[in-house]
Amino acid sequence: MALIVQKYGGTSVGSVERIKNVARRVAKWQRAGHQLVVVVSAMSGETNRLIALAKEVQPNPDPRELDVVASTGEQVTIGLTAMALKELGLKAKSYTGPQVHVLTDSAFTKARILEIDERKIRADLNDGYIVVVAGFQGVDEFGNITTLGRGGSDTSAVALAAALKADECMIFTDVDGVYTTDPRIVPEARRLHTVTFEEMLEMASLGSKVLQIRSVEFAGKYNVRLRVLSSLTDPDLPIEQEANSGTLITYEGDKAMAMEKAVVSGIAFSRDEAKITLTRVPDRPGIAYQILGPIAEANIDVDMIVQNVSVDGYTDFSFTVHRNEYAKAMDVLNSKVKAHIGAREIVGDPRICKVSVVGIGMRSHVGIASLMFRTLAEEGINIQMIATSEIKISVVVDDKYMELAVRALHRAFGLEHAPA
Amino acid sequence: MALIVQKYGGTSVGSVERIKNVARRVAKWQRAGHQLVVVVSAMSGETNRLIALAKEVQPNPDPRELDVVASTGEQVTIGLTAMALKELGLKAKSYTGPQVHVLTDSAFTKARILEIDERKIRADLNDGYIVVVAGFQGVDEFGNITTLGRGGSDTSAVALAAALKADECMIFTDVDGVYTTDPRIVPEARRLHTVTFEEMLEMASLGSKVLQIRSVEFAGKYNVRLRVLSSLTDPDLPIEQEANSGTLITYEGDKAMAMEKAVVSGIAFSRDEAKITLTRVPDRPGIAYQILGPIAEANIDVDMIVQNVSVDGYTDFSFTVHRNEYAKAMDVLNSKVKAHIGAREIVGDPRICKVSVVGIGMRSHVGIASLMFRTLAEEGINIQMIATSEIKISVVVDDKYMELAVRALHRAFGLEHAPA
Repeated sequence: MALIVQKYGGTSVGSVERIKNVARRVAKWQRAGHQLVVVVSAMSGETNRLIALAKEVQPNPDPRELDVVASTGEQVTIGLTAMALKELGLKAKSYTGPQVHVLTDSAFTKARILEIDERKIRADLNDGYIVVVAGFQGVDEFGNITTLGRGGSDTSAVALAAALKADECMIFTDVDGVYTTDPRIVPEARRLHTVTFEEMLEMASLGSKVLQIRSVEFAGKYNVRLRVLSSLTDPDLPIEQEANSGTLITYEGDKAMAMEKAVVSGIAFSRDEAKITLTRVPDRPGIAYQILGPIAEANIDVDMIVQNVSVDGYTDFSFTVHRNEYAKAMDVLNSKVKAHIGAREIVGDPRICKVSVVGIGMRSHVGIASLMFRTLAEEGINIQMIATSEIKISVVVDDKYMELAVRALHRAFGLEHAPA
Repeated sequence: MALIVQKYGGTSVGSVERIKNVARRVAKWQRAGHQLVVVVSAMSGETNRLIALAKEVQPNPDPRELDVVASTGEQVTIGLTAMALKELGLKAKSYTGPQVHVLTDSAFTKARILEIDERKIRADLNDGYIVVVAGFQGVDEFGNITTLGRGGSDTSAVALAAALKADECMIFTDVDGVYTTDPRIVPEARRLHTVTFEEMLEMASLGSKVLQIRSVEFAGKYNVRLRVLSSLTDPDLPIEQEANSGTLITYEGDKAMAMEKAVVSGIAFSRDEAKITLTRVPDRPGIAYQILGPIAEANIDVDMIVQNVSVDGYTDFSFTVHRNEYAKAMDVLNSKVKAHIGAREIVGDPRICKVSVVGIGMRSHVGIASLMFRTLAEEGINIQMIATSEIKISVVVDDKYMELAVRALHRAFGLEHAPA
């Protein structure tokens, strides 16, 4: 008997019919003798509907109240899912985030999970219940309702799996796994049977969008066995088959997995970013903090950061932020940073994209970067920024070259063929 | 400075525009120096939508899970209402029932309030906040979400007013007060400036539907000053004018109020009932309990009860229940009661109505009943059941005579004229 956490996203619970399918799938796993915790999102479209309603009342909705409103989406789904399970004759019970003390910080609309009290859930499981928990939401130390932000349901599932020491956390979604790149752009893209946490992290953060990045971090930190698989298959698919479908996220240290790894696992990309450059910044200690401190205070996440070498005591400083936060970041820089640090000007460009080559194997291989840059050069694509890590090389290029760059790199690294 | 609880029903918060109007009205009262607690219902149509969704999943929805789903309706409204207040530049904070510990029993879908912890609300009021609380919902001792059943938001408002010792509880609704009878049936119907708790209780239970009956009981028990008034007036109506609008529910003992009272205050009626008769029941001690005990156990409320005099040791026993529970009541009687007590047959009729003459003044007056019966006789209306209390005489008549009976009685008691 295993304890399994299954998470179903908005599309998977997007209609009454789909919720009934979720119930059938969950029932199948329970009948096979497993204990099930089911984490669900709001029905697709519902969160957007609620946010739109809020914006009609207050164009810039109060974050605390927005969470009160938005969290109802998942609350409806847990009730309906528990009903669907009961209708199949199973014991089921739903809980909101606050009800099982998913304790978070107080950063409304983007809260972080601090702790989960798993005792109530464990007691129910031992009593034979399937426990249905609302993803995306929690409660802060003052009893306020919080939400984890978009995609937070994945994190809820992984956090629950960690708290319960679950045997596996299965993230059911509308794709059937992690691919070498987006098949909509490269038809030859191939599903990976396994991918390391580190690669997954890079893939997720770079726009593969299969899993929410925070959930992958969480899973890595707490050794949660994590699998991404499709909820669009027949709910009565035999268990042995379903158990090996999708993509399993593995640990880097797992030798058996490493054996079959290619040097490069995939090509990731993102159009969600914008580039900001401060030119002719005096190059003195603490300057990076003076620039990025106010950005962090405004709760804006920064992704790539590049600082050029100093010339005559001045440097250029560039970074990327989420495109939605571009205007806000520019505001912060113009009002709080520019005059203070004495930069010449602040220039921004939201029409960029980021393309990355990702692979745990690239650490022990030379020539990956040069193959990447050569490939882009041959296609006539100008590189605006470069950032590298142990398992990833990212470049920022003009928006319009994205598909071209991804296809060329996928081919150059031979990703259409399974590794030997 | 007064502490005022204002309750706005589903129609009053039925759209973003109306929620903004509620905020303007509340703001007006706060600017006049009062402390405000605002209790809101789900936006009109929302509770029905949620229940319909639940029934699609489970035709007979699990009550615990139904409450999880249904309670989201009010949760959306509190968030939106708090936002609308903030948009006007006011301090506002929303709370769900569980968040302010509206402790109820565990009778899902029809829970009763046991206790409210008012400390959080009081602290917020003292900090200058307008506090917005979700009506209709609470939490049981095990942390389960409960709802109070239809109309429960009125009870929430009164319970909060009692816990906070509020100066007045204003129930804003889509009618402008309590009338001598329904103006849609009798155009000459007149708004009562005051009505006693007891009369209101009779009026509400008999279908005036202005206030939920349990809220009136609650208000009486805890000495809450209760006013029903319209939310459809201009939200910027001067406070002095609004403060005296609608109908104030008064205590019977209040002499000043009693002075202006007529003998009969109004004609109430209800089409929501059904009549059930058990014929030739052995007339022995405990028989009423044997019949109504199983009905109560099935959570069915009984209204009128009439037992005829015994003939040859047998009697006929009749009572009325809500029309929605008619089938269930018949089931209970046929399966659990009939054979057990040895009744000859059980006959029911859902096509009846109840018409009542209500008035605190009738206690000291004779002849009310005879005028009522004579009036009905003159119209050729046959009376099927009669029940009387200190301040009410009710008759059950055929459904089709309802309007006729109400109009004739309104005229016979001269209710179109204000009392001298």
